[in-house]
This record gives sequence, structure tokens and C-alpha cells, in this order.
Amino acid sequence: MNPVTASHGDSIASIGERCLVKEIRKWLGASSPAAPAGIGDDAAVLTPTTPGHHPLITTDSLILDRHFLASDDPAAVGAKLILRNVSDIAAMGGSPTVAVIACMLPANTSVRWLEQVFRGMAKAAIDWDLQLVGGDLAQSHQDLIFNLTLMGEAEHLLLRTGGRIGDQIAVTGPLGGSFPHRHLHIEPRIAAGKLLAAHPAVHAGMDLSDGLASDLPSLLPEGSSASINVSAIPIHPDAERAALRSDRTSLHHALCDGEDHELVFLIDAGADDCHWKSLCDACRDAGIAEPVRIGAITTKSCAPLINAADGAALIDGHGFNHFH
Amino acid sequence: MNPVTASHGDSIASIGERCLVKEIRKWLGASSPAAPAGIGDDAAVLTPTTPGHHPLITTDSLILDRHFLASDDPAAVGAKLILRNVSDIAAMGGSPTVAVIACMLPANTSVRWLEQVFRGMAKAAIDWDLQLVGGDLAQSHQDLIFNLTLMGEAEHLLLRTGGRIGDQIAVTGPLGGSFPHRHLHIEPRIAAGKLLAAHPAVHAGMDLSDGLASDLPSLLPEGSSASINVSAIPIHPDAERAALRSDRTSLHHALCDGEDHELVFLIDAGADDCHWKSLCDACRDAGIAEPVRIGAITTKSCAPLINAADGAALIDGHGFNHFH
Repeated sequence: MNPVTASHGDSIASIGERCLVKEIRKWLGASSPAAPAGIGDDAAVLTPTTPGHHPLITTDSLILDRHFLASDDPAAVGAKLILRNVSDIAAMGGSPTVAVIACMLPANTSVRWLEQVFRGMAKAAIDWDLQLVGGDLAQSHQDLIFNLTLMGEAEHLLLRTGGRIGDQIAVTGPLGGSFPHRHLHIEPRIAAGKLLAAHPAVHAGMDLSDGLASDLPSLLPEGSSASINVSAIPIHPDAERAALRSDRTSLHHALCDGEDHELVFLIDAGADDCHWKSLCDACRDAGIAEPVRIGAITTKSCAPLINAADGAALIDGHGFNHFH
Repeated sequence: MNPVTASHGDSIASIGERCLVKEIRKWLGASSPAAPAGIGDDAAVLTPTTPGHHPLITTDSLILDRHFLASDDPAAVGAKLILRNVSDIAAMGGSPTVAVIACMLPANTSVRWLEQVFRGMAKAAIDWDLQLVGGDLAQSHQDLIFNLTLMGEAEHLLLRTGGRIGDQIAVTGPLGGSFPHRHLHIEPRIAAGKLLAAHPAVHAGMDLSDGLASDLPSLLPEGSSASINVSAIPIHPDAERAALRSDRTSLHHALCDGEDHELVFLIDAGADDCHWKSLCDACRDAGIAEPVRIGAITTKSCAPLINAADGAALIDGHGFNHFH
């Protein structure tokens, strides 16, 4: 019997990703600090060596036939590896600095194809002002995988914790339908992330990688739900297109599709909307698209996400669940 | 036609690891600085934020049925992931600080087995005083892979560059036969690495991961060869055992086997061996095994490694070549 392979319902697929992460944190125990210094936010915040400069670290992988296809433009695949990690740094209020690349490649990988992937990485790195300082090559048996570990730096931090009941929920742009095209052309919200992190009324934020329905619960403080004004959700034209090809509505795509890489955040609107207005002014001044309010944090209801119109659960199940 | 899969001799296996790394550095161009700030040493040296504290970063992967077996103790597999990266930090003269773990796992991976791997990582992290601050989970199709990116910090740096003709070549311990047992029980040479990095007569050093024959050429300055006093090579008892099971001598195992994780370094012996003696004294004082001299750097000869006795090439081909 092979101890690596599950028997009797002991597989990671059967327990699911969220539960597995919880278990891992238990197994790691004292070797792994709590967020934001450890697991649980978009990136880990390391001990500052200079006051006001918070070092950040995050890691993410791309797997052939899961996160990209053999038919995708290889330069876009390389860029995606960089940009999905840059998005995690943006979600913390930071800017990227240096990265290392680990490649796990079958022996028959084409050098010509690989060259285009690396040239795509190099271009994205230069465009986003980070340096590729090291890496590792290992020969896999079948899977073709790239992993990037990216460091960054933030003056002000945007964390997942800090939300309060009454906070308004907002997103930095339209959602849904990132497959099959937009997921290869991520635009990390670095400028927006910095602006949000520095704004005193913004309490918490994160990037949308698994979809709003799946990700937003991570921002909810204990004993709260998110009351969503469904008609306010900005739906991407790609979500409309996706709906034409699927049996789901464009709203469902906007709520549940992964890899949007917009930011979702919580803000105290303030008396007469003063904080919200000052944020929108700051975005305009910085040439950033104005964010869109989609709901508010309420006391705990029947589900993590409820419809503001009738108080019913907005969606059952998760958006995008790995290991299913 | 699948562009990812090589045709007509375009595979990464056909060009080999060394050549592929050279190509990658070319492809990355301006996005990737030269060593020690970039690719080419055991770890990359980042810009210090405090004088005298050089931040380090390195990454390495473990693949099932390549770097470990399903029948291996899972806790030892987890420890190996940590310790082979710690060895890279030791090779720079540093100590480990924080790490992130990326897991690429098939859906049917056993939770129980995975728990033992993570508990092994946690124990190794605590033993070697580093924190596991983050990670990523992704579902692979077939390969089971763990990747670790480790950061460290060095007061003094031990680089691969800096060797001179006339330098003596030494290793920190006996070599060979690390498979099937010792490779799972790596002892990173942190104390030795720090001592070597701080010693003014030590010019260069690295850790032995692919075997002396394969790794030592990385320490050779332009226009030089390594003249090896073959009878001086410390042969591990495991290499003797390996020779009994193989058609190779224990010396061949000591020269060519991978995953020793001892350090090899270059030192100016000094008048009357004064530098060498001071280094050995320092090792004794620190409770570290005394290093062993195995040869010297000479002007370029017929091969990178030659036998000091007759000047002939010591070995043809490489020690351990990935992608073969």
C-alpha cells in the first residue's frame, strides 16, 4: 500500500482547501506565526528593519492545464506568473521588489516554448519594477509547473482583518468572466492598494483571486455577514460573454468566477459619506478608476453573503474551490 | 501540435541543466541581476537595509520519486525540504530566518501522510530557528511536489567567486553514498559557513548538492583547474556501503554522488600554513569537525578536475546532471 495515496476518504480533495489550510496551520503549530506575520493574508508581513517599511512575501504557482493551456501565448503565461503574485502584494498595500522562480518541468519540455515563457516573465518584471534574483530547476514526471515567490514592501498595510459591522463593501472594478482571456492579462492594483492602505477610513482589503463569493467571507469580522446590493455589483463585459456560453447568469459569473484580481475592501463611509467622497477624490486625482460600493457589513445572518433586498442567502456553496 | 512538448531535439533534457541555466539568464536579460545579487550562487544576496546584515533568498523543490520515495518517512521528507534550503543559506555564511512553502498535490494525496510531512517541516523549522510564514496550495495532475523559498541573513558573505590560483581546496566532511538514507537527514553546516565567511583567508565556498565533481568547477576562477589529491578525499562510510551495491568504487561515489551538503571552500594557506592552522583552531574552539584539504587551484589543465598525482583528468562527464 502506498501511504502517499489516500484510501477511505482520507484525500485532500475530500476535505477541501479551506479545511486543509486550517489543518496545516494546526500541524505547523509554533513554527508558523499568526497573520499578518504568517499564514492568512494575501502576503506575510515580515519584521521591518527600517521603520515604515514593511517587508512582504507571497508565493503562488501556475500548473499546465489548470492555470494555463498549452495553446495559450507562452509570454502571457510567464507574465501571469509574475502578475498574480504582484496582485497579492498590491492587496497588502505594497510594491513588488524581488522574486525567485522555481520550475518543475518534464524532460520533454520544449526549449523554444520555455524561452517565450521566460521572456514574458522578464518583460512583466521590468514593467512592474521587480528583479528576478534566483530560481530552481527540477525535473517532474508529468506536470509542468512554475512557482514564484515574490517579496514586496509597504509603507502602509492593507490587511484582511480590521473590518467592522457597518462598514461599506466596495470593489475596484468590474468582475467575472476572466476565463479564457483576461486571466492571462492581469492588471495588479498597485496604485489602488497603496491609496487604500494609506486612507484612514479603509479598514480591510484583499484581492479577488477565487471570486467574490469565495473571497469576501475572509474580510468578515466575527459574528457578521455581508449584505450585498446585487444590482450594484459591477459586471465585466467578459461575464456577459461567459453567460452566453454557459448555463449561468452574468451575475453568477461576477460573484463566482476566479482570477479577477480586483481589490475588495471595507470602508467607514463617514458622516455625509465624507470618507467615501475623499477616497473617490483621491482615486480621481491619482488617475485610478473610482471604486464601486456593493453592500455593507451587518450582524450575522443566515449566510456569509446575503441579498440586501430580501435578506436571503445570496449563493450556496463556494465560488471557486481548489481540490474538488 | 502541442508547443509545450519538444520535437526535433528541442527538449530541455537534450540541452542539459547547465546549458539551460545559461539560456535562462540570457532570456531574463535586464530583469535578472548578476550574482551575488542574482542567479549563480547558492542564494541571492539582496540589498542590505541595515549595514552588515545581508538578506539572502533561495528556493528548492522536492519531487516524489525523484528526491524522495513514497516509502520514506514522511516527517524526514518534510525536514529534508527545510534542511536542503538551510544548507544553501549555510553555504553563503548565513542563518535562516523565514520561509514560504508551495505544495503542488494530486487530489488523492492522503491527509494523514501530508500531516506527517508538515509536522516534519515544523520540527525542522523550530530546530533551525526559522519561521514558516506562508504558502500556497495547488492541485497538480500527477506529480507531488513541495517547494520552499527560504530567506536568511549573513553578517559576512561566503561567495562562489573570489578563488585564486594557488588556493587550497577543502571540504567540511566526508563525502558520498547519501542515498538511500543520509539524504533524508541533512545537517546544514551553518556554524562552519559562518566561520568560513568570517575568516579573512577563505576566498570562496559553496555547498555540495550535486557532488564534488559536478559542483567544484563552479568555484574555479577563469583559466584554472582543480588539482585533486585523490587519497586525501574523505570518503563517507555510506560511500563504502554504496560501492558494495554498485559497480563503482567508493571514491567514485565520493566524487559523484549528490546531496552531501558538506561545504567545499578555497583558502589561502598562508606562510607556514598559518591561515589553515588558524581556521582549524577556530573550528576546534567552535566544536566543529576540522575541514580536510583535498587539493589546490592550478593554472588551467586538460580538465576542470585533474589528479594531482599524474595530471590526468580526474573524471569525465559530470557528477549528477538533472534533465538527463
